[in-house]
Formats: sequence, structure tokens, C-alpha cells
Amino acid sequence: MKKILVAGATGSMGKQTVQLVEKLPDCQLVAVLAPTASKSAEFGASVKSFDNLAAVNIATDIWIDFTTPQAVYENTKFALKHHMHPIVGTSGLTPDQTKKLQAIAQKEKIGGIIAPNFGLSAVLLMKFAQEAARYFPDAEVIEMHHADKRDAPSATAIATAKLIAASRNPENCSQTAKDSTARGADYDGVPVHSVRLPGYVAHEQVLFGGPGEALTIRQDSFSRSSFMQGVKVALSRVMDLPDLVVGLDQIL
Amino acid sequence: MKKILVAGATGSMGKQTVQLVEKLPDCQLVAVLAPTASKSAEFGASVKSFDNLAAVNIATDIWIDFTTPQAVYENTKFALKHHMHPIVGTSGLTPDQTKKLQAIAQKEKIGGIIAPNFGLSAVLLMKFAQEAARYFPDAEVIEMHHADKRDAPSATAIATAKLIAASRNPENCSQTAKDSTARGADYDGVPVHSVRLPGYVAHEQVLFGGPGEALTIRQDSFSRSSFMQGVKVALSRVMDLPDLVVGLDQIL
Amino acid sequence: MKKILVAGATGSMGKQTVQLVEKLPDCQLVAVLAPTASKSAEFGASVKSFDNLAAVNIATDIWIDFTTPQAVYENTKFALKHHMHPIVGTSGLTPDQTKKLQAIAQKEKIGGIIAPNFGLSAVLLMKFAQEAARYFPDAEVIEMHHADKRDAPSATAIATAKLIAASRNPENCSQTAKDSTARGADYDGVPVHSVRLPGYVAHEQVLFGGPGEALTIRQDSFSRSSFMQGVKVALSRVMDLPDLVVGLDQIL
Amino acid sequence: MKKILVAGATGSMGKQTVQLVEKLPDCQLVAVLAPTASKSAEFGASVKSFDNLAAVNIATDIWIDFTTPQAVYENTKFALKHHMHPIVGTSGLTPDQTKKLQAIAQKEKIGGIIAPNFGLSAVLLMKFAQEAARYFPDAEVIEMHHADKRDAPSATAIATAKLIAASRNPENCSQTAKDSTARGADYDGVPVHSVRLPGYVAHEQVLFGGPGEALTIRQDSFSRSSFMQGVKVALSRVMDLPDLVVGLDQIL
Repeated sequence: MKKILVAGATGSMGKQTVQLVEKLPDCQLVAVLAPTASKSAEFGASVKSFDNLAAVNIATDIWIDFTTPQAVYENTKFALKHHMHPIVGTSGLTPDQTKKLQAIAQKEKIGGIIAPNFGLSAVLLMKFAQEAARYFPDAEVIEMHHADKRDAPSATAIATAKLIAASRNPENCSQTAKDSTARGADYDGVPVHSVRLPGYVAHEQVLFGGPGEALTIRQDSFSRSSFMQGVKVALSRVMDLPDLVVGLDQIL
Repeated sequence: MKKILVAGATGSMGKQTVQLVEKLPDCQLVAVLAPTASKSAEFGASVKSFDNLAAVNIATDIWIDFTTPQAVYENTKFALKHHMHPIVGTSGLTPDQTKKLQAIAQKEKIGGIIAPNFGLSAVLLMKFAQEAARYFPDAEVIEMHHADKRDAPSATAIATAKLIAASRNPENCSQTAKDSTARGADYDGVPVHSVRLPGYVAHEQVLFGGPGEALTIRQDSFSRSSFMQGVKVALSRVMDLPDLVVGLDQIL
Repeated sequence: MKKILVAGATGSMGKQTVQLVEKLPDCQLVAVLAPTASKSAEFGASVKSFDNLAAVNIATDIWIDFTTPQAVYENTKFALKHHMHPIVGTSGLTPDQTKKLQAIAQKEKIGGIIAPNFGLSAVLLMKFAQEAARYFPDAEVIEMHHADKRDAPSATAIATAKLIAASRNPENCSQTAKDSTARGADYDGVPVHSVRLPGYVAHEQVLFGGPGEALTIRQDSFSRSSFMQGVKVALSRVMDLPDLVVGLDQIL
Repeated sequence: MKKILVAGATGSMGKQTVQLVEKLPDCQLVAVLAPTASKSAEFGASVKSFDNLAAVNIATDIWIDFTTPQAVYENTKFALKHHMHPIVGTSGLTPDQTKKLQAIAQKEKIGGIIAPNFGLSAVLLMKFAQEAARYFPDAEVIEMHHADKRDAPSATAIATAKLIAASRNPENCSQTAKDSTARGADYDGVPVHSVRLPGYVAHEQVLFGGPGEALTIRQDSFSRSSFMQGVKVALSRVMDLPDLVVGLDQIL
């Protein structure tokens, strides 16, 4: 039975994580950390509640973190130093902080995972796109989001384009017309197109073309509940990881 | 039995048209016009061959034109004046020439059709998009073509965007982020995205979004043989048209 | 200002309708009907609340009905007899009941609409599919729903297939292999395929194929909020309808 | 420079292979085998032409086989025994023949590849589907082909379904309604749907669904020219293979 502490247990993702842990037969929720954890009626009597990091006086097997950019570094450091395998879904770690955490993990000989995106379909799309680009160097990315999304392209679409560019041999790419804005934004030579329409949620597709054939990979995120599948995968693997890896794709 | 003359009968589209006419039970190929028509072995003994317009000494029911931008105006004028219903697939008529031809058609009391695009799927897509825009004002166009296509966006995609813009009420449109080239080219407020990939032929899709739902219309042109379905529709209707209409959608 | 009564105002669809009416500048909610309407705190002081049909002592311009199969016939009859234009979204009317209501509407000289489906994208899909089938007689329907949906195919997919079959000329259809269950269920000669997967909500696509080209129409329903767009369209047109029509497509 | 013999060089695939080899900078066509090879004017003066297997008196680095089910076994055996790495695109080898050839390859210590499908997009689709099924056990396959295809489902779709079934944990699958033919053909629990429409060429998609999200992989084969990309990949890898592998996916 894996003993689990959930940090950020009263937030939107944290609540879903608590529910997930309670349902999994090989996991046990033993503690939560959140500013108002001790006052919350959400957690069972057997669950220890801590209102701040300094109060935590327990070592679980796994530390799941859905907190804030301000808290995540100290939290993860604490987890590693107390030999709890961290699963970090909180965003905001700088590259420098990530490196420091990896150094601590190595010293303490404990593995964990930092995952900017727990959506399995998005992570698999990126993984497959990277692999396909070796055989289909010509690729374009189209992402589609609700009308209210302010930034374009989406961070995931940019990451996908860069992975494709890094994976393919640019010498094999076709020369195409690029002098119209209709051809999209260029990321390392990969055109990225952004659609913004009401009704849509969060969707991405990668189109590959080669002589006489085409390959398309598409993912649709209909709700944030999808992230729990990724957390589940992380829970099943984190205790076997030899170091602190970045990206869910590293363990798929 | 409708008697048909095919102008441009030795060209790529003209050849397919000749084959189509020969297969249709209610049509009869009686004459062809092409610079080398009289030397061609392609046409049956019963078919009259003319090498130039001045030589044409016959009046058929229908004149099908797949010639050149240089020839099409005089050809169509000739057809109208000799009371042959024209079906014009040749591009290159100026708006002014089109107006003059329509005036001649009116004076001669003869109908016909000028169609820039005989692809039924493309024409239906434009028709449906126009109609859908009344209920889904938020729309984007994505067209996908082979890597060698030089211009972007395609003429059909631009035409589609303009039809959508003219049909919808702009006051009902969502405000979306537009400050990235990833958002495509703007045609009357409708974003148009162009994908250029090897393997692809000619494809277009229109994406509509509204609260909680989406509507997508897509057409794929795999080969030019598709145009013959549009010619077939024109053949079945042209003799009933009261004037010289522009666009296959006018008779669907 | 159109005066509106909402029947079934405390149900899921009714609540959304009340919100919609309150937002529309040319509509005014003047009354609600629901078993517990008078006890509900949801409605403003200016709104009359009736707990049963017998209590209704007001005549509004429009009667919107999202009640139950048991109540809908008497409700609609009442509305027509008191010269309120009915917009009926409740399912369960038998063909016989519908005919009787249409006769009453004709006698009372009042128009209205009975709409089994207020989803604009679904209604437009059916309308376009019907039209496209005249030019593309070869068609197949694929509907995709969440894994819990018990029936297959969906009612809308069956309705779509039947509309296509009624609209096309079966003589022009291709002969295809039909001896495998992989070819789907046959509705008047149109294959219908049903996909059931978790994550999916409610989606339908119609695929048309002709020589060298294809046309695809797809609709996605992400949430029931989409129905309100259809109610909005009905609200804008119902007072001009000369009789009691069935199907939102009749007024698009 | 890799020296190549093409067997079946006058057939449709063989001709394309000859053209491919002549274009590749690190490959040299040194011999062809075909019943009428010596009479064909297609091959350069430097290329040796053999009309039958018994006449072949040369050992190249690589033997590419696009011949007939009758000839392929003896051809491949000959290639292996003369230490030519075989790339076999001819279908028709029985499982027993394949085993015998693998034994010969092992004895002769020479690698090669037998590939039932050289279409890279189809092979990658199968590879990715297999991988995705581990995280998305709920999956359905839809394949779309031209109206003339007699069998349904396609061999590739069946193979895809079986790979998915073998890769996923069936205990994690959703229970879905299966009592309608609309639910397709069942292959090891994976529903397979077949669409047959004119205009379509050869297309396949795999739909995966999980809580709140979906993943779709699609491939389109527009023409047989696509197979040459797979042959190219095989040419670049075959000389490094330690044994005789089956399936292009084994070397991707």
C-alpha cells in the first residue's frame, strides 16, 4: 500500500487527486497540506491535515503537488529531503530550480516526476509526432481552443512544433510558399495555426504529408478530469524512477 | 436528345467532357472545336471538327467551353448569338466581359452558365457555409493543398471566407485574439489558414463554433475527374435557365 | 416586447430557458409553470408562478414547454386555445397527438413549433445532408457518443439516414460489399455506424463520396447549453409562423 | 555504394523501385530479374538483365523482391544463400515458408526484411495505436475505402484491431452496448467499422477515448507511390539487420 500526501488538497486539481487516491486500491491518503486543510471537512478522520510546510511531521511514500508557483520549489525540496517521491503538477518551476531539485534527488537517491501536462492524449500526441517526424519531415500543427483563450499559439502547440523540428532532418523538408499570414506562425520551420471558436474546448492536431500519403494525430481535451489519468500513471511508476524526470512522456 | 459542341476538346478537361457526353444517354456529341481538332483521331466519324471559331457553321443546343482565357469571351459570345446554351468552365473572363455576355444573353433570350468551379463538393461547401454562418457567425477556414501550390490562401478559400462574412451578422461574432500570425490571414474578419504538405491534393474545411457545439464542413478533391459531376449537373439544367448565371451554386 | 411563459421552469432545460429569456432584450418572462414553481426562490417578484395547468390565468405571447411526455399534449393544447404561440422542446408527443395539435392550431389560426432537437449544429447537419444527397447519393453516417449511451444508433443518426435515403435517387448509388457487420446497420440503404467511447459527448458525421471527391459534414455537441441557441432562433420566428410546424429545420 | 538487384523489375511496383534506386545517391542498380527483362528497353546498358532465377550469376548487396506469390519463396531463399540482404514486398509467403526463410537467414548469418505493407503512414498508425492502447484501452477502428473494395474490414484494419487488443488490459475497458450491427465487427473486443464510398482511396483511423479526452490517429493513402518511402527506409537499414524480420514497424 503506497502512502500518499497531497499538497494543495483543497484546490481544484487537489480535490480531484484526493478523490483519485481514495479510489485506487493500492494507494492510501495519509496526509494533506493546504492553508485551510485543518479546517476543511473534506478529509477523513484518519487523514492528517497540515496547514503549512513547517508543520509537516510525517514521511509518506509519495508527495503529490498541486500548489502554487510560490510554494512548489520548497515543497518539492522538502519531499526529496524526506525521501518522499514527488509527483509535481504545479507549474512555475524555473529551469534553474528544476536543475537544483534534480541535483538534490540524485544526492538523496530518490526518483520523482515533474509534469507540466498530465493530459495523456496531449502527451502521447507529442511523443508520436516526434517519432513520425523522422519519417515525415513535412508537418504542420493546428490547435483549436475556445474563443476566450488570449494567447496564440498554445504552449503545447509550440512545444509540439519544436519537438518535430528537433526530430526531423530539415534537409528533407519540402519548400513551400511562406509569404502569407495564412501560412501561420513559424516555429523552427514548422507552421503553427491557431483556431479560436466558441464551443471548442482544447484540441490539437498534427498533420504530416509525404509522397502519396498523409498521417494525422489529433487530441481533444473535453474537461480537466482527463488530467487524473496522467496522475494515475505517475502514481504507478514514480516509486521505480531512479531520478527526477521532467515530462510525463518520459515514463510512458 | 441534346446536341453538344465541345470547345477545347483536345485539352485535359475537354477530353474528359467528350467522354462524359458520349456516355450520357440524352446527349449527343455533334461537333468539336480545337486548333488541331480536324487532325485528331479521337473523335468519331459522325462528329464535325472545327479548327477555329470562324469555321463553325453549325448550331447545337449546348456549347461547352474548356478553352483559354484568350478565346473564351469570343466563343461564348458566338454561342449566345447562335442560340447555343453555353456551359463555360474556362477561367479568365473579366467582370466587364461577364456583364457584356449577360446583356447579350438577355437580348437573345437564351440562358447559360459560367462556372469558375465545377467541383460539386467545393460548391456545396460554399453554399452550406453561407447558410450556416447565419446561425454560427464565428467561423474559420482551413484549406490544405499539395506542397507545390504557390499561392496561399487558395482562391476558393478566399471566396468561402467572403461568402461567410457577407452572410453573417458581424455584431454576433466573438472577439478573439488576433495578434499572432498563427491566427491566419483575415478576409473580411474570417481567419483563413493554409496548409501546404506533400501527399495532399486539394481540401478545404470550414469550422463553425457556438455555445456548447461545433459544426464542420469539409470537402476533399482527390482528382480532376470530380469536375465532370458538375458538368453533368450543368448539362441537365442549362437549357431551362432563363439567363446567363455565374456559379454552379446558382443551379443546385 | 414578447411576453413569455416557461413551462417546466424548474427543470434543467427550463432553468436555462429562463436565463435566456431574461437576457434577451426583446423578451420578458412574465410567468412560469412547474409543480413547485410557487415555492421556488428562483423567479423574480414580477414573475407569476403557477403550480399546475388549471391555475394558469394569463395569456402570454409565447409558451415555451420543457415539461414531461405526460404533460406536453395538454399544455400545448392549452397554449394554442389561449392564443399563445407554443415552442415545444418536450419529447413524447405521438404522431396522432401532433396531428391533433396541428388541427387545433389551424382552427385557432395560431402558429408554433414542435422541435425534437434544438441543437442547431445537428439540425443544420440534417438539412445539409438532405441537400447534398441529391448530388452525392453515396453516403454513410457515423455517430459517436459516450460509452454509457445504451441505444445504437442514435435517434438523430437514424433520422439523418432516412432523410438522405428519401432525398437521393437510389438508382445512382454504388453497389458496395454489405456482407460484414463492419458495414454497419442499414437504414433505407444508408449504412449507419455507432462509436461508443468514454470522453466523447455527442457527435455525428455524414460522409459523402463521388468520383474523385468527398464531402463531409460533422457536428459536435459538447454540452446541453447548445440547445439555447435553437430556442433563441425559435423565439425570434415563432410569432410569424402561420401554422404549427415540426422540426427546427423548417424555420432555418 | 550499395549494389542492388530488383526482382520483378517490369511490374508496377518494380518499375517504381528501379526509379527510386536510380535516384538514391548511395545505391546502384546493377541487375534486374523479370521474365522479359532482357527484352526491355527500360534498363541502362550497365544493368544486367536476367529472365529467370536460374540465370542469375551475380551477388549484390541487396535483393528487392516485388514478384509473385509463386516466385517469392525461391527468390528469397536464393538471395539469402548468396548473401544478398532481401527486402521482400511480394505477398503470399505462408507462415511456414517465412519460418523456413528465417532459419536459412540465421544459418547464413544474414539479415533482411519481409514487409506486407510498405506504407509508412499505415505502419506508423499501427505502431502508435499499439502504444496508445496501453493508456487508452477503449478504442475503435474506422477504415474507409473506395466503393469497389470487396472485402470488409480491410486486412490492415483487422491487424490494427488485433494489435490494440493484444496491447491493452481488457479489464480496464468500458462496457458498451454491442447489440446492434451499427456497433461494427468485433475483433478481439475492438469494434471495426468499414466505410465504402466512391472517391475515397484507402484511409484508416483509430479513435481512443478516456475520461474527458480523446486521441485519434488517422492515415490516408492517396496513391501507391507512397510505398516507395517505406522501401527507402528498408534500403537504409536492411544491411544492419541481424536477422530476417517481418514488418516494417520492426525497423522504425
